[in-house]
Amino acid sequence: MKKARVGVGIIGLGVVAGQVARVLLEKGETLSQEIGCPLTVRRIKVLETDLRRPLTHDIDHKLFTTRDEEFFNDPEIDIVVEAIGGENPAFAYLKRALEGGRHVVTSNKEVIAKHGMVLRALAAEHVVGLRYEGSVGGGIPLITRFQYDLVANRINGIYAIINGTTNYILTQMAHEGIDFGTALKNAQALGYAEANPANDIEGIDAVYKLAILATLAFQTPISPEDIYREGISRLSNRDFQYAHELGFAIKLLAIAKNNNDQVEVRVHPVLIPEDLLLAKVDGVYNAIVVQGDLAGDVLFYGEGAGAKPTASAVVADVIAAARDVVRGNGITSVPVFTTLPAKNIKPMSLIETRYYLRVLVVDDAGVLAQIARVLGDHRISISSVIQKTTDNVAKTAEIVIMTHPARGDSIQTALDEFARLNVVKEVSNFIRVEEISSNQEATNSSS
Amino acid sequence: MKKARVGVGIIGLGVVAGQVARVLLEKGETLSQEIGCPLTVRRIKVLETDLRRPLTHDIDHKLFTTRDEEFFNDPEIDIVVEAIGGENPAFAYLKRALEGGRHVVTSNKEVIAKHGMVLRALAAEHVVGLRYEGSVGGGIPLITRFQYDLVANRINGIYAIINGTTNYILTQMAHEGIDFGTALKNAQALGYAEANPANDIEGIDAVYKLAILATLAFQTPISPEDIYREGISRLSNRDFQYAHELGFAIKLLAIAKNNNDQVEVRVHPVLIPEDLLLAKVDGVYNAIVVQGDLAGDVLFYGEGAGAKPTASAVVADVIAAARDVVRGNGITSVPVFTTLPAKNIKPMSLIETRYYLRVLVVDDAGVLAQIARVLGDHRISISSVIQKTTDNVAKTAEIVIMTHPARGDSIQTALDEFARLNVVKEVSNFIRVEEISSNQEATNSSS
Repeated sequence: MKKARVGVGIIGLGVVAGQVARVLLEKGETLSQEIGCPLTVRRIKVLETDLRRPLTHDIDHKLFTTRDEEFFNDPEIDIVVEAIGGENPAFAYLKRALEGGRHVVTSNKEVIAKHGMVLRALAAEHVVGLRYEGSVGGGIPLITRFQYDLVANRINGIYAIINGTTNYILTQMAHEGIDFGTALKNAQALGYAEANPANDIEGIDAVYKLAILATLAFQTPISPEDIYREGISRLSNRDFQYAHELGFAIKLLAIAKNNNDQVEVRVHPVLIPEDLLLAKVDGVYNAIVVQGDLAGDVLFYGEGAGAKPTASAVVADVIAAARDVVRGNGITSVPVFTTLPAKNIKPMSLIETRYYLRVLVVDDAGVLAQIARVLGDHRISISSVIQKTTDNVAKTAEIVIMTHPARGDSIQTALDEFARLNVVKEVSNFIRVEEISSNQEATNSSS
Repeated sequence: MKKARVGVGIIGLGVVAGQVARVLLEKGETLSQEIGCPLTVRRIKVLETDLRRPLTHDIDHKLFTTRDEEFFNDPEIDIVVEAIGGENPAFAYLKRALEGGRHVVTSNKEVIAKHGMVLRALAAEHVVGLRYEGSVGGGIPLITRFQYDLVANRINGIYAIINGTTNYILTQMAHEGIDFGTALKNAQALGYAEANPANDIEGIDAVYKLAILATLAFQTPISPEDIYREGISRLSNRDFQYAHELGFAIKLLAIAKNNNDQVEVRVHPVLIPEDLLLAKVDGVYNAIVVQGDLAGDVLFYGEGAGAKPTASAVVADVIAAARDVVRGNGITSVPVFTTLPAKNIKPMSLIETRYYLRVLVVDDAGVLAQIARVLGDHRISISSVIQKTTDNVAKTAEIVIMTHPARGDSIQTALDEFARLNVVKEVSNFIRVEEISSNQEATNSSS
């Protein structure tokens, strides 16, 4: 049965929910034209506490309801937009909406990262669409690329700057020469970081997003616990200076690689060559490189967060769902998520990358030789070395070593041995290096 | 009626058609899984001359046919892929396929740019999908962004490097300091430029692609004739040197701007600030910046041509069409193309940009004053000036002027007056400057 009108119900009244409601109300006419029938916001489910806050003037307050029953039993709601964030009660709400035969749109990365497979199965069972373009990369069109535009590709790798807060902090450290603490305070002052910034700076947010992307790209469930994670708080200005001297930028990357039956999934700071486009992505912007066997390297760039960009993605999903509602016949245009045979997660100890090592040593003859011998003992070969006196009085020097590719466990053992050397005052830092070389050369052809 | 199998017919046997056939044959199993039933290549329509060329071994020669009737009357062909390029006979083939109720996939920019509206109407009439993702930007997912992911946005502007050949030449000129002729020869030697390079270097290819993008972005028919066009052949090494001194890169951009009821659509060389991401897109790569009122600036980057990237886009379209075939009920998931009220094309004479002007003059006192007075007479204000002696014996100097925003007609009049000054030996070049400032600041918000 074809519908004559499409009704939307929104859960939440935060910045994203408010912006989505505003766009649907303000652009209602043009959007209705896109789907071929009126599209209206039926209800907005809020908490009692929401109603006690100063409410925006541009939303009709009659739309608000605090009662779950009134919201979920409204037969005029065809599409449920969840925008409260967090795992609970969002997960319960999403399940209830799908079980009630509603198309669902969410920008909730945590719930999709943790419960995506359950929700996808529920959506398939009830023949409705589960859409979550806003969950990763804000307004950057990304999620549906894997099942649509890149569907003919084997995805070999993903390299992503998908947390704007940390990219802002790293950009400040790199370009302004300020330390981590000051950069974080600046980010907080500008509203780019929260009062409790752990979710961003420890890489948890990036892990959720990578879990979503890797699941889609590799067609196998990747959960947040599968993903290795390091934050950015142990990066110092000296690392940025040395990296720049060596021709590298430092970024927090979310990385997923497809090595036949094994996958690598990890979020940690990396050195990447300064001349890569990804190295030039600054401030709160996000950028995602996807490597396909046919498409080659494709990069998507834009604002990864914020009310308007996220609303752009959420409303696009609402329109897609609305087109399904209008078409009728109980069909959804969201493709069935087909999984490939499960893949093993490669442990970090076995992953080979180049490494940047920074060690504080006694400024004495033969110290470099001792350091180099330890590396040699573990078959780690050196690509380049910088040695600088840091304190003439205390007689300390800093040694920075770029290695050739070495296994994680070999590096860890070597660092432990460094720490036991008398000449070593401190193993100051180690950072992995990613070259992000594509498997494919740009194809020869004109135009 | 649901289909138990989906048949594909391919027109053409060039590099793209060959690659598409290869992907559909080699990846048939996984792609069939994506759509839920077998997907097979039924026939490949070729010319007699194609059959006289050495044929690829990996394609079953029984699939070839030279007879139109056999191809177009085959009831097992649900989806027609056109990959012969050029306006004719491709246009006739596409019409015939749509009229026969076939879903159509093409990577033919010329035919879509020139006849897109006719073909869209035909597709709508016969309730089938017309898909052409491969026509712009090769494997970069782009076309369907406007009707899907960015559908909630008012598109304010597009700035695109969409011709790899010219971008390769400009990159060579900028980084290697070689002249246009040598860079073109290099591009030809590498297969990046054709023996007759006019289509690329004169900007014709970029015009077709911009016509397609602007039509979709502004929801109004923009034809190739609407688009102002300049090629790159009059750029000299000196322009690159001065531009770099002033902090700018030179790129051939396809530009579309939405100013209320007027649009600007133009393809010409521009100076853009060197620190923009777009300025850092080098070699044969393409990049497209789309400015939306909600999403902000979104950039897409990748290989804009080549058999594999284009096949990635074409096969993605085939899969999308195949999903429609499988769903049955004579429905296509391609949204109806809704047009907004027609917009006027703003004439170049009225378009305001900053300008870079290079003039060869007699190296004498008072010459700059004369040049400056002409500009002043036309209310063109100067932002910066470089004056350099070029020849001590001939007593010539070069004056490079960056203006503040000025109208095209004022600049043309001023340049004509320059040419009439006794002290001016030559008006060597003028290039427009684009700042590509977004209308929107990055939104404040964490993560």
